[in-house]
Amino acid sequence: VKDIVQPFVWRGGELCILDQRKLPGRETWIRARDAETVARAIETLAVRGAPAIGIAAGYGVALAALHSRATTDSVLRAIERLRRTRPTGYNLFHILDVMTQMVTMGRGNLGARVLKRAQQCHAEDVRACLAMARYGVSLLKNDERVLTYCNTGALATGGIGTALGVIKLGFSRGIVREVFACETRPVAQGARLTVWECAKSGIPVTLLCDNMVAALLQTGRVTRIFVGADRIARNGDTSNKIGTLQLALMAKRFAIPFHVAAPTTTFDKRLRTGKAIPIEERTPDEILKGVPGLARLKGVRVWNPAFDVTPGCLVTSYITEKGIKHPPFLF
Amino acid sequence: VKDIVQPFVWRGGELCILDQRKLPGRETWIRARDAETVARAIETLAVRGAPAIGIAAGYGVALAALHSRATTDSVLRAIERLRRTRPTGYNLFHILDVMTQMVTMGRGNLGARVLKRAQQCHAEDVRACLAMARYGVSLLKNDERVLTYCNTGALATGGIGTALGVIKLGFSRGIVREVFACETRPVAQGARLTVWECAKSGIPVTLLCDNMVAALLQTGRVTRIFVGADRIARNGDTSNKIGTLQLALMAKRFAIPFHVAAPTTTFDKRLRTGKAIPIEERTPDEILKGVPGLARLKGVRVWNPAFDVTPGCLVTSYITEKGIKHPPFLF
Repeated sequence: VKDIVQPFVWRGGELCILDQRKLPGRETWIRARDAETVARAIETLAVRGAPAIGIAAGYGVALAALHSRATTDSVLRAIERLRRTRPTGYNLFHILDVMTQMVTMGRGNLGARVLKRAQQCHAEDVRACLAMARYGVSLLKNDERVLTYCNTGALATGGIGTALGVIKLGFSRGIVREVFACETRPVAQGARLTVWECAKSGIPVTLLCDNMVAALLQTGRVTRIFVGADRIARNGDTSNKIGTLQLALMAKRFAIPFHVAAPTTTFDKRLRTGKAIPIEERTPDEILKGVPGLARLKGVRVWNPAFDVTPGCLVTSYITEKGIKHPPFLF
Repeated sequence: VKDIVQPFVWRGGELCILDQRKLPGRETWIRARDAETVARAIETLAVRGAPAIGIAAGYGVALAALHSRATTDSVLRAIERLRRTRPTGYNLFHILDVMTQMVTMGRGNLGARVLKRAQQCHAEDVRACLAMARYGVSLLKNDERVLTYCNTGALATGGIGTALGVIKLGFSRGIVREVFACETRPVAQGARLTVWECAKSGIPVTLLCDNMVAALLQTGRVTRIFVGADRIARNGDTSNKIGTLQLALMAKRFAIPFHVAAPTTTFDKRLRTGKAIPIEERTPDEILKGVPGLARLKGVRVWNPAFDVTPGCLVTSYITEKGIKHPPFLF
């Protein structure tokens, strides 16, 4: 699997971030020269996907450390800033912890060693994606027709992706026949990004709305569901893009295997269950803006959680770079 | 419950149709002077909602019958044209059968008697809505927080609505505290029409995306779900807006009562089960048009069924103008 898609590139002392808000219409890049620009790119979803957010934040720390007047304190402040961008995905906090250690305990030139560590995090994710893809493909039988959710591909990671990485490798080996991509409201990462990645890779993809899943599963056209994750608790409770919970419930109802693919940087070992995972609520505008006249109506509230928590008992298996974990789950 | 909203008004020999595609942004009206204009309004969703479609089609037949050169044959051709507009909702076929009988067997002036029958169908639906609302409210306890789907209000019927009619009456009696409206992709009848109707009636409404339902039910904030129907088979299998099936499955999972409100004109007694209900597939554009650049991508298919079929066993009760039906269902 060769990927021509990357969510960011480190080049000439800056982080070039592909602005995913504009995809698939336009490919425009944000040139980040400081941590604040990276933080805003994360907040505004120019870069998204738990692993990609973590890696981008690592580069954000590197930008702070490479500043001509950088001090340990100024870099730690940048880390705190990046910590406040998005609350749910765990990879961000994992990598910021790693970077904090490198800033406070490392030796040698601050900028050089922090950048090196950020690049290592990136490279580790590239390898993790490949390993996950190989493990994930081992679960597949022939002629798989896979439903996926949100975007978990190259755009969401440093490498070929998590769930979509498995699917891509499976397709390249002739085991996956086609992909069903859920739109994934309100930001439409499925419709905009997964469909785009599949089209770029020549994978036959069928787009559907999030409310069509049960009807699709009822037809028998889907053999397997693969999703990614933003944070996983020790008992396997999995926070992922809003809608994953109902996907998992429907998979159970229709007896379709439901797999979660995520690198170990997504696992939060401090949490016994998913109850303590902070769920980000985003602006009503994400939902309102598509409908002319809606924002003007009085007395209208909007509920816009970006994630939900799927109980571990609904997950058939977890695919990590270290192997496949089957129930019962206790990480 | 007083309704200031109507999907169409018969006035001065023409049918004025509120163009629901433009709501809630603009209130514009289509002046239909012939059956073809009514047929196109139905096909393009300017008027929608199974009961409203049926009544509008009845008026369409009246327009054909009122034409200065109308003959029995020309009116029957108009009926055939209207029959081909949308396949799933049964009220359309019920009313066109009623109109066919009036055209072929009635006595007296063709135009006058056909118009009178169309107006009777309209008046019957007004009464049916009121009766359903009263029966439905009898199911409610105090302090209900009701989730609803698509639009089943005044805009979808001749009267105050089916499911939303129950909700409105319940609110006016202080039994319903708030409403949760699902967006209902891809046409967003929930976000555009139900939210608009609730706002007009002063009912507190919270809009959510279709993929947020399980997460919402998990919070315990919803006490009851009310939906409408497009066609109901004798065993209770219910075709309704795509996404109803997964709503019903989630209601079951979270043990939340799931009610279907529909006039008896929605019941197709020729069908033993829901398997034979024709499910309309609509144009991919409905899904593609919201995402710039998506339609240009190669190899992308779209699946856009407008309805799904919910097994009768998932329905807690049916509310009709003749009373409430509990399981087991055999109409």
